Parts: sequence; structure tokens; C-alpha cells
Amino acid sequence: MAKSAQPQESNLLKDIIAHAKEYGFVYPSSEIYDGLQAVYDYGPYGVELKNNLKRLWWESMTRLHDNIVGLDAAIFMHPTTWKASGHVDSFNDPMVDNKDSKKRYRADVLIEEKAAQYEQAGEVERARELLAAMGKLLDAADFSALRDLMINEGITCPLSGTANWTEIRQFNLMFSTQVGSVAEDASTIYLRPETAQGIFVNFLNVQKTARMKVPFGIAQIGKAFRNEIVARQFIFRMREFEQMEMQYFVRPGTELDWYKQWADTRVKWHLALGIPEEKIRRHDHDKLAHYANAALDIEYQFPFGFKEVEGIHSRTDFDLKAHQEYSKKKQQYFDPEVNQNYIPYVIETSIGADRLFLMTLCNAYTEEQIGDKSRVYLKFHPALAPVKAAILPLTKKDGLPEKGKAIFEQLKYDFNIIYEEAASIGKRYARQDLIGTPFCIAVDHQTLEDDTVTIRDRDSTEQERVAIAELHGRLAAACSFRKVFEKI
Amino acid sequence: MAKSAQPQESNLLKDIIAHAKEYGFVYPSSEIYDGLQAVYDYGPYGVELKNNLKRLWWESMTRLHDNIVGLDAAIFMHPTTWKASGHVDSFNDPMVDNKDSKKRYRADVLIEEKAAQYEQAGEVERARELLAAMGKLLDAADFSALRDLMINEGITCPLSGTANWTEIRQFNLMFSTQVGSVAEDASTIYLRPETAQGIFVNFLNVQKTARMKVPFGIAQIGKAFRNEIVARQFIFRMREFEQMEMQYFVRPGTELDWYKQWADTRVKWHLALGIPEEKIRRHDHDKLAHYANAALDIEYQFPFGFKEVEGIHSRTDFDLKAHQEYSKKKQQYFDPEVNQNYIPYVIETSIGADRLFLMTLCNAYTEEQIGDKSRVYLKFHPALAPVKAAILPLTKKDGLPEKGKAIFEQLKYDFNIIYEEAASIGKRYARQDLIGTPFCIAVDHQTLEDDTVTIRDRDSTEQERVAIAELHGRLAAACSFRKVFEKI
Repeated sequence: MAKSAQPQESNLLKDIIAHAKEYGFVYPSSEIYDGLQAVYDYGPYGVELKNNLKRLWWESMTRLHDNIVGLDAAIFMHPTTWKASGHVDSFNDPMVDNKDSKKRYRADVLIEEKAAQYEQAGEVERARELLAAMGKLLDAADFSALRDLMINEGITCPLSGTANWTEIRQFNLMFSTQVGSVAEDASTIYLRPETAQGIFVNFLNVQKTARMKVPFGIAQIGKAFRNEIVARQFIFRMREFEQMEMQYFVRPGTELDWYKQWADTRVKWHLALGIPEEKIRRHDHDKLAHYANAALDIEYQFPFGFKEVEGIHSRTDFDLKAHQEYSKKKQQYFDPEVNQNYIPYVIETSIGADRLFLMTLCNAYTEEQIGDKSRVYLKFHPALAPVKAAILPLTKKDGLPEKGKAIFEQLKYDFNIIYEEAASIGKRYARQDLIGTPFCIAVDHQTLEDDTVTIRDRDSTEQERVAIAELHGRLAAACSFRKVFEKI
Repeated sequence: MAKSAQPQESNLLKDIIAHAKEYGFVYPSSEIYDGLQAVYDYGPYGVELKNNLKRLWWESMTRLHDNIVGLDAAIFMHPTTWKASGHVDSFNDPMVDNKDSKKRYRADVLIEEKAAQYEQAGEVERARELLAAMGKLLDAADFSALRDLMINEGITCPLSGTANWTEIRQFNLMFSTQVGSVAEDASTIYLRPETAQGIFVNFLNVQKTARMKVPFGIAQIGKAFRNEIVARQFIFRMREFEQMEMQYFVRPGTELDWYKQWADTRVKWHLALGIPEEKIRRHDHDKLAHYANAALDIEYQFPFGFKEVEGIHSRTDFDLKAHQEYSKKKQQYFDPEVNQNYIPYVIETSIGADRLFLMTLCNAYTEEQIGDKSRVYLKFHPALAPVKAAILPLTKKDGLPEKGKAIFEQLKYDFNIIYEEAASIGKRYARQDLIGTPFCIAVDHQTLEDDTVTIRDRDSTEQERVAIAELHGRLAAACSFRKVFEKI
């Protein structure tokens, strides 16, 4: 699990959060009951944007690669799954409370922040040593010594300013619930903390029933849940979130080549979506998780700094081996090319759909000032925009609404379109800019004469006169996923 | 919540379950750990079919109607939501155990089965009286008298044959979990038992930010969870399932007109998907839920009988009024046409995505015997089929694979396509029939000469020679949602 520094919500992030709420992208969950911490709902434009992102990922995985197929495993899984994966025993955060402020923190995050302070002050070696010392204590699960380290380093609560800390306790991040009908025979199951295990336990089912040959991949989109101690930064770290994971099964010994190849492919994917190269960077993990022999994050420069959007992990045979051990069922593949049975190695590409959404929104949010005119617009790639076009009759009379509605009827089967006739045309343009609609189609008096309309481009605000008969082709060309796919 | 009779899994259902497992549609969840009761995973062809059904529903709601928008609310909601909706207090099943067999039953289902026996024996009046008596006792929550009724009626356990029953207890069907980091400050939240409330609590957010005017609708697809005592009939009744719900907000007094209109629209939708008219029926509810003033089920004739696939409910202003009361926030709409503030009335269309999937699978499953040849195939509507076409070079040499791959490259961006060169062409055709691929495109020696291929139709098995250049247009015409939409 990635860690992050203390909340530093910039004004830009605040503006984006307010925009997302005001224009129907993201609402706090259960807002009429004053919300539920770290849970959010997607509004009408948000759900369309999220669906477009999910579908783009899904199709780029399952269609562009003829050896990747999909899966949709349930959130509920047999509890032994999480014993085998290591989550029951070690999916923990070290938690500490300040007795004066009553605020709770992750001890490791507080220490990392201290190290970052050293680094900023030029004390690079001191920072390195502190992180190394912490790493050893965490590995040894020596929390009493970890607390001593905090106190020796003079780490204090940002609120109370004191070092009056409780003991550090391990806190498991999985949500549990009871399944079955009475307490005595009910069993405890977990809400999955990651979607990956649903793929691993189905490895042989998929390989056999879809007749896959190594190397092959299984792609999945689904919800996962983590009882985060400190959830923050809008939809960046939520207790309920959506993952898009692909596990790629390869012959042992070839995994690092595939790891490199998938890292490159996934970076290209982000660039194809319109993210500028300078806002994306790779971050190699110094410290590897117990299951990995190589790992990196693809980071985006959010308003609160470079943070992980996607992880690429070489997971070795850790998971399949563990499931073989716990289930007593062979998790092997017979490879006819080398005439051998083996447990495949796995490369994982794991992206948070909500983080991808936030990256897309942050990247699209644009405040523009031209002369004394300012406007805000969302410059989504047309393939991702929630609404593709708005049909706007110039006035409510002279048959313009009827003509506009006829165009709407013609386009509605293939595109998400808005028809709107209220308010001035300028106000209606501004409204579409705010939700990121790439094209505004105005129906005017000339339309009645020669069946042409104007198309206004969201980004340049320039208008062009085109025949109604051309609209479908124009939208299809601009908004198709194919344009994105061809860049990957 | 709908009820159902004791499991009567027909041989046909068993065949369909086996087919779904064998050909990558549906697997038991966590199968390597011997499964998790009443939870299933969707395999590679299953997830494609399910995604097509979800997208078809989504687009037919949000695109064909310019006054319906989407929403994606979280599974986690503020717990007061479920107090307001009535689920905390009354989302219960009356549960009874047989002391000899140790088996658990729903008391109301046992009594209903007894009534059905009377009816079958021609004792219609006696059946009616029994159901009426049960209804009264359930309404009064008099479970001691309900148990007496069971015993007086001679209802025995099908396993032990005795009437040695425990007391009847109320059992709440919501799953709960703890959110927050330590027991003392954690709060109990629920996994939503229906998606509808996510729409109701966001009613004003959506209405304002998407600027909707009554009548308007909000559509949502998402997971819901119920701790069913007796889950059964494959994916028909699961503990984790997916709902597709649309709530349509209307002016009070107009709700019954809208109710009729939505019932008609939704029946037409099922017919447009290729379900035969005689397999669909409407079932008006005799006994209305506390929130409804009219309700009906759209039922499909499954192998285990006519059962609910979708519910149409006139929910009145029950939910918005309850949320207004509990949240102390006005849930009103100002209607400029009548110059009035009111709480809108609501018509709900609620369909189970998994039931829709099962209906589609049952309807597609075909065993055919022509002469001495038999085959099994899945006759999905091409718009719904998981794979649209298979590209099959006749042999592995003479450049046929290269030609086939070039066709694959040309089509893969817009359609889910399979390329396969192993095994005889007959076996490959049979394989595609089993997963329901509507078109098999064979590449043969003539292809090299004149750039034509044969297309084999799954249902008629007839082959036709067409130019490669025509393939894209052919597939697009056959597989587009538009064909379905135009029938609604």
C-alpha cells in the first residue's frame, strides 16, 4: 500500500473539488446526512467520465491483445484466500495516537515526514539512515523500539505539539462481516482489499475454459475496500475504491523482460490519453513487497505532488504458490514448448480507477484568461468527455427547436448528447465548457435554408460551418477510442 | 424481497450451469477453496456478456431518454440512510430451524409451499385462507402464533419429516461491518441491500447540478448485498448481486400514468432483446410493500418456473419524505409549471443484472438435433454475444494465418474478436457455437486470390462468400445496439 504525506490541499485542489461538486462530477457520499468520511459518489457527468475510462482500459487490454481475457470475480471470497495471500497476518498499518490531541496517525508516515524534512534541509544521509532504521524495526515488528525512535527524533503531533504518544499498535485494514444466519454458525469473511486474488484463484478456470497459452493475461475491474486510518485527498485515497488490474502469466525466468515491456506499454497508455510527458514519471521501489522481485509506480503530478496512479509489479510465483499450498490443488501449467509443468510467474499492472479519474480531471481543469475575459473549462480528450456534443437552437422559435431535436434524434443512438434551448447561446456555451463537452452544435436560421450548422470547438472556441449530414462522421472520428488505441 | 419455492433444479438448469462453468461464463466463487455459498464469479465470456447487458441497459436509459441521467453512488452509505428507508427495523425474514435435521428455513416460504399444495389439489379457497392468515400474523409480527399455524397445518421438514420446530426468529438481511480504526470509536455501517437509496439521498444534488426538470430519471448500476438464509438457483438469488435501477421523479397525482408507461416500456425492452413473448409475463402484486401504491413483476419462464427478473414499483413519496424527516433537509422540488413546491413521487424500474444474465443464457441455450447430428449452441442476439466473430484460417500454412491475422488487426478495434488456427475447421465452428459467437469468418485459398472470405451464420450454419472490405460494415450492422434500441 502506498503512503502519502500529511494533507497539503492546495487551492487548486480545492477549486477542482468544488468544481466537481458544483457541476455533477463527484459528491460527498450521503451528503444529506453530513457525509461518510473518505467515501464519495459519482454524479451524472462523473459516472460517464468514469465509465469511459473503464471501458477504454478494458478494451485496450482485452481487444488490443489477443492473449488477454476478462474476469469479474465477486467481492466476497473464501476467507482462506486472505490467509494464503498474507493479508490476514500482515495487511497492517502501525498506528499511534497522540494523547493530548486525541488524533491518530500512521507512525511510519510521521517518520517519513521527518526524513523528508532532513532531506529538504540538505541532510540527505541523515534522512537515509532514519528510513533504514524504520525499515528494520517495521520488518522486525518491534513497535516499542519504533516508538522510541519517534521520540528520539523529536517527532511531535502537528496539532498538540507534544510527543505524548500511545503505544504503537498494528491495525488490519480489511473490513470484515458475518455471513450466514445466526451468530453461532456464521463465518467471518472479508471485503476484498484488492481485486488481484480473484484473478489468482481463478487462474486455472480461465486458462482451461478460455484455452489460454502462457504468456497470457487476465484483466479485471472491480471494487476493493480498505479501512484506511487516515483517508484523504478527495478521491485519491478512499475506503471504497475501484481497481483495474491485469495479471500477466509468464514462463519463469522471462518475467523481468515482460515487466519492462508492460511498464513501457502502460506509460504510453497514459500519454495517449493526453497526459503531458512532464507530468508523468516512473518511481522504482527501493523496498520491495514480500511477493515482488521488481516494482515501480507510474506517478502523476497532482496538485498535491507526484503520486502513484498505477503500479507495475513483478509478483513472481508468490500468489499461485501460496494458493497451491493452502488449497492443496496444483496451480501448474503445462508448457508444450519446453515440455514442462511449472507455476507461472506474474506481472501485474494495477491502476486505481478513481485515481485515474482524478488525474484526468486535474489534467483537464483549465482556467483561462484572454484579455479581460476569463473562463474555466475541462479539456477532456473527446473520447473521454462525458458529453460529446450539445445541440443548441439559437432561439426558441421559428422552428429551430424542431430542427435541433431532429438532429438530437439522429445522433443520440451513438453518442451521449445534450439538447438545450434555455438561456442565451453564450451562457449555454459556458455551461458546456464547464462540463467539458468538446463540441457545441448551434442551429440557426441558415440551418433552415441549407441544412448546415455551426460547430464550436471547446478549446479554441472557434466555430465552423458544416453540413448536418457530416455531423455523425465528425463526432465518430473525434470521439472514437480507436484514435487513442492507435497511439499505444 | 421476492420469495421462491424449494429448489427444484431441473435437468435443463443443471445442463446450463455445467455449460456456463465449462465454457467460461460462470464459476463458483473461490472454487479452489471449495466455493463460497451463493457467490459466483463471471469468466471471460460471462463478463463480456454481462458488460454488454449492462451497457445496453445504461444506454437505453440515459441516451434514448434525454431526461434520464446516470449516477454511481458508493456501496457504503451513512447508516441513518437505512434507518430512514426502514431496512434497519424491518428488512427481516422469519426464520425457523428443524431441531432434528438442523436445517434452517424461512417460515413464510414453508407456509406458501403448503398453500401451493392445496391449490394444486384444487382446494383454492383453503390456500387463500392460509395465505391470508399468514399475512395477518406477519404484519402483527406474532411469531409464536405463526409457529402454531405451521404446526396446525402439519408442516414438516422435508429432510427429517418432523414438525420439531424451534421458535421463529426475525433475521435482518443486511451485512454490517465496522468502519474506523479501533473498536471504541468505530461505527457500524451496512453493505447496501439495494442501490435505490443511493439515488434518493442524491436526488437534489443530481437535480441541481444536472439541472433536471420533473419528470426526470436517475439511472444506476451497482452491487448490493443480502445475507439470504436460503440462497439458491445458481445466480438467481445470490448474497452479492448487481442491480440496475432507475428512479423516475414525477409530479404527485401523475404517478400511476407513468407507472403504466414504464411497465410497457420495460416489457418492450425485454422483447427487443429477443425474449419470446410467451416466456414473459406480468405479475401484479396482491400485497404491496409499505412504500408502494402499485407494483408488478416482469417474470421470465426460467427452467424452474416463472420468476421475477424486473420489478416496476410506484414508490410514492415514501423515500424522499423519510430522508427529509431523518436528515432535516428539505427534499422538495419547485415546479414552475404549477408554481408549487412538492416532494416528487417516484416510479422505480429495478432489474437484477445477474437475473437478466441468467435469462439471456437460458433463452440462448439450444440443443439441436438434425438427422443424426446434434449440437449445442448459444443463440445470443449478436448485440449481446460475448465474441462477435472468430477469424479461422482453413490451414496453418500457405500464408492463410498471415491473411487471417491481418483481418483480425482490421476488426479488433471495434469488435471483440477471436483468432484461432488450431484444430479442424469443424471443431473450431463447434467451439464458437458453444460460446455463442454469431459469425465465423473462414480464410481459405480463394481468399488469397480475390480477397473474399466465407461467413458462417451460427444459427443456420449456412455459409456465404463476402469481400473482406464488407466485413466491418456487416458486423457493425448486425451487432449494433441501435437495432435493439429501434424496437423499444
